[in-house]
Amino acid sequence: MKSGILAICGGIGGAKLAFGLSKVLPPEELVYLVNTGDDFTYLNFQISPDLDTLMYTLAEVNDPERGWGLKNETWKNLKALKEYGVDTWFQLGDKDLATHIRRTQLLDEGKKLSEVTKLLCTSLGVKHLIIPMSESPVRTIVTTDKGKLAFQEYFVKFQCKPKVKKISYIGSNKAEIPKVLKKLIDENRFSGVIICPSNPYLSIDPILSIPELNLFLSERNMPVLAVSPIINNASIKGPTSKIMKEMNIEPSVKSIADHYSGLTDILMVDYKDKENIPRLDSVSFVFDSIYMETSSQKINLATKCLEALEGKYS
Amino acid sequence: MKSGILAICGGIGGAKLAFGLSKVLPPEELVYLVNTGDDFTYLNFQISPDLDTLMYTLAEVNDPERGWGLKNETWKNLKALKEYGVDTWFQLGDKDLATHIRRTQLLDEGKKLSEVTKLLCTSLGVKHLIIPMSESPVRTIVTTDKGKLAFQEYFVKFQCKPKVKKISYIGSNKAEIPKVLKKLIDENRFSGVIICPSNPYLSIDPILSIPELNLFLSERNMPVLAVSPIINNASIKGPTSKIMKEMNIEPSVKSIADHYSGLTDILMVDYKDKENIPRLDSVSFVFDSIYMETSSQKINLATKCLEALEGKYS
Repeated sequence: MKSGILAICGGIGGAKLAFGLSKVLPPEELVYLVNTGDDFTYLNFQISPDLDTLMYTLAEVNDPERGWGLKNETWKNLKALKEYGVDTWFQLGDKDLATHIRRTQLLDEGKKLSEVTKLLCTSLGVKHLIIPMSESPVRTIVTTDKGKLAFQEYFVKFQCKPKVKKISYIGSNKAEIPKVLKKLIDENRFSGVIICPSNPYLSIDPILSIPELNLFLSERNMPVLAVSPIINNASIKGPTSKIMKEMNIEPSVKSIADHYSGLTDILMVDYKDKENIPRLDSVSFVFDSIYMETSSQKINLATKCLEALEGKYS
Repeated sequence: MKSGILAICGGIGGAKLAFGLSKVLPPEELVYLVNTGDDFTYLNFQISPDLDTLMYTLAEVNDPERGWGLKNETWKNLKALKEYGVDTWFQLGDKDLATHIRRTQLLDEGKKLSEVTKLLCTSLGVKHLIIPMSESPVRTIVTTDKGKLAFQEYFVKFQCKPKVKKISYIGSNKAEIPKVLKKLIDENRFSGVIICPSNPYLSIDPILSIPELNLFLSERNMPVLAVSPIINNASIKGPTSKIMKEMNIEPSVKSIADHYSGLTDILMVDYKDKENIPRLDSVSFVFDSIYMETSSQKINLATKCLEALEGKYS
């Protein structure tokens, strides 16, 4: 890569913009940095939900209806596991399971998560580079009124029902940044950063909690643009606004602007929020229709983000 | 169990008679002792081919056409694994895979193989007790002209093509006999033993290689009947006669009688071998049609075996 964009993203919401970006920028000009705080071990498999969602999305084999996993998936294995009495709170499809089997096999062979991700991407025909935020485990722990829960337990097993008190990222202080990312940063290969509209607390903060990555963004010499995950005081999908309320944060673009304050130069918000933006010297607000459902909406928003970043250069 | 039959068996050939026996004797009067020398670890899964074949056969969910695995199986996971570049020499079906996932999970939790087997059997509705020959690993190693091969490598990966020089059973000296079996033996619960027509060298000898089990059969106070895996100087299915030739053993009922000499009182052979039986004081030969394809052939042979054993009592 000569000079390009670093797109920071989590799972489903972020992957929509990530898809749009992949259609606008070639692999030489776009790299993804992905949350692995949701990673976990289930039935001996090493599962990386956000890496998989992005990988499947870019390979265009994801299931857009369900929002996760693969399209044309079958569930024979899951049914048989249930019959054996396995607690199948995390649903593995027959094809999706192959991703976890292969990842686990390659990690067991001693390969780094970034290498494994690249191999999986190559097999799926994904040409853009997807980099996990850490080679070593960083685990997002949600402290709730039902106790401490690993992210996937909170998100899938308990369906975001427990009340969130605190979110912490275990292991981020000792996180081992992938060498390939370090090299790109050291060589100043990024001309801009886009923070995709993933949940700031659950998907983006784990990445920012890694000191080396936080430093890179704080002392940046390139503009950073974030896309709001909030439209008209509510999250587009998922538990963002529910979690914000439970943590006594008003679900609004103002709160998002405050949250990313010092880390972003541009905040892309929806037209619907024109009346809701705060006055902040450090942040420029750019308005667009940021709701994404169709491919053309995703590509359009990606284009607008890049235009906004380019405006910043001038 | 008050007083009953111990059926010793390996995989496919043995499972046919085992099926017949299950239709003739209730669970209180029949226990299976099964070879685990073929067990191996593949893609992190603990696989027990002979236990699975018997379990699936008794549950009547086995695929009789293919001879292994489950009927109505699908292969989505296998296809996806291949696309990821996994060396899929051992074919795992989507449903069959659940057995290996569950077994591995339960073993990882610290359960013994005999306990795991019982849980799997219960889920599949198998009422007869299936006992693995050992809780600890015993591994059948085939020394060939292509080097030493683990059994499944020899059998599946290399399709029995390498020339067999020697067969050894690693770990059998230290094998940990399942307590449930030990208890049944100590309490003299068996009134007869049937050695099913599995491959003597690859499926039965691993069991006999365990000193405690060998002693139990040598110092027996009940009759032992073996069913010949050879009809008319050839194996019914599988590599038995090929292996015998490679080890300079004539593939004949005489060789089988010699091989089991001292361990069996009765040898059940096919009518076709009437002219081929040797004179041996220690072994009585019983003739029948021992080729099994249909359920009624399996049930018929099982009945004949039990009748022969009963004749021995009188």
